[in-house]
Amino acid sequence: MRRTVFVLDLDGTLVDSVYQHVLAWQEALESEGIPLSVWRIHRKIGMSGGLMTNILLRESGFEIDAARGERLRRTHAEAYNRRSRAIRPLPGARALVAHLTEARIPWAIATSGRMETARPVLETLGVDFDRVPIVTRDEVRYAKPDPDLFLAAAKKLDVPIETSTVVGDSVWDMLAARRARALGIGLLSGGYASEELERAGAYRVFEDPADMLRHIDEIGGRR
Amino acid sequence: MRRTVFVLDLDGTLVDSVYQHVLAWQEALESEGIPLSVWRIHRKIGMSGGLMTNILLRESGFEIDAARGERLRRTHAEAYNRRSRAIRPLPGARALVAHLTEARIPWAIATSGRMETARPVLETLGVDFDRVPIVTRDEVRYAKPDPDLFLAAAKKLDVPIETSTVVGDSVWDMLAARRARALGIGLLSGGYASEELERAGAYRVFEDPADMLRHIDEIGGRR
Repeated sequence: MRRTVFVLDLDGTLVDSVYQHVLAWQEALESEGIPLSVWRIHRKIGMSGGLMTNILLRESGFEIDAARGERLRRTHAEAYNRRSRAIRPLPGARALVAHLTEARIPWAIATSGRMETARPVLETLGVDFDRVPIVTRDEVRYAKPDPDLFLAAAKKLDVPIETSTVVGDSVWDMLAARRARALGIGLLSGGYASEELERAGAYRVFEDPADMLRHIDEIGGRR
Repeated sequence: MRRTVFVLDLDGTLVDSVYQHVLAWQEALESEGIPLSVWRIHRKIGMSGGLMTNILLRESGFEIDAARGERLRRTHAEAYNRRSRAIRPLPGARALVAHLTEARIPWAIATSGRMETARPVLETLGVDFDRVPIVTRDEVRYAKPDPDLFLAAAKKLDVPIETSTVVGDSVWDMLAARRARALGIGLLSGGYASEELERAGAYRVFEDPADMLRHIDEIGGRR
């Protein structure tokens, strides 16, 4: 029997934090004198922060250098933490991970964020740090859309990536899932459109964790 | 000769204010004990605020009453104005309206917002209130996706709506344009995807005002 396991993204997938991340990046970029439209930042959210700033700077003709990248990372983390009081788990997020745990379906979390910003939201989800494998950007060389985070999660779960299903809200999750040869399930809760996720290779698209849980038997999540 | 005129939406079309509106609505709804995911609010932005809150409340099973609606409107306006310092015109917005004015192509602004929140951003755009027809939510019975705002703008311009082109960033702009029998041009700068705007009837989709200005000769905007 080929058993499905789930590798879950965090921001926009389990917690409603994408828009705060977007505005925190805008604030950080502005502080470097780099004015960028908010929608352009939104469309890059979900990939590694370093890669995102490099891409945004390259697209808009600004100079990329390591010191500026480090300042951007720090200013973003501060601006995000200032906004993080308003952040809530997405509907069904706690119920979804509880279902997987009860059904003894292995699951892990893989996020492009660093533990510094991820820990508080993982705590609001009630994730047991001793039992759930968590892979953050700190542990891999390259974050999404590179496949490393998902490969590391499958390794921690001790399963082949080819039987893993990645759940994410961004185009970068879907692209990284394909590069890793995992199956990608897209959620609309990060603010991408259904067609964008499908075009990036999503196998199925659901509204949010609650909607995915309602359809869990269709995607290998039966008890 | 059939001359095109342009009716321009404001938030997300000329100014980069959608994400601030979204988080301000979330804050207002939370203050009423109504927790809603941010992406769901984003997908309703652009329509009348009153209609939006009614629809969001109906979808999530909360009670709709006039007093609550009025409190939501006030709390949103306060929360939005607190965030509005960070709001900038979108790239090309000033150049686009300057081009239309110089080319003697009639244009107007039609927004689902009220003058109370629209005035400061209209000022950052340098709009001449004495020369440019401006229709806000205060002047019509129903805002988008009803056609009233666009019909009122065409009337102020003294042109038939059937030769008007509406420019907007949201699905509600495109739907209202069709109901009014205007042509709709979609901009990605409000955070909707190209496919969503096309599905709602967009005749063309551009990234933002700068991108639209680069293609202005294709859409009846020649000098």
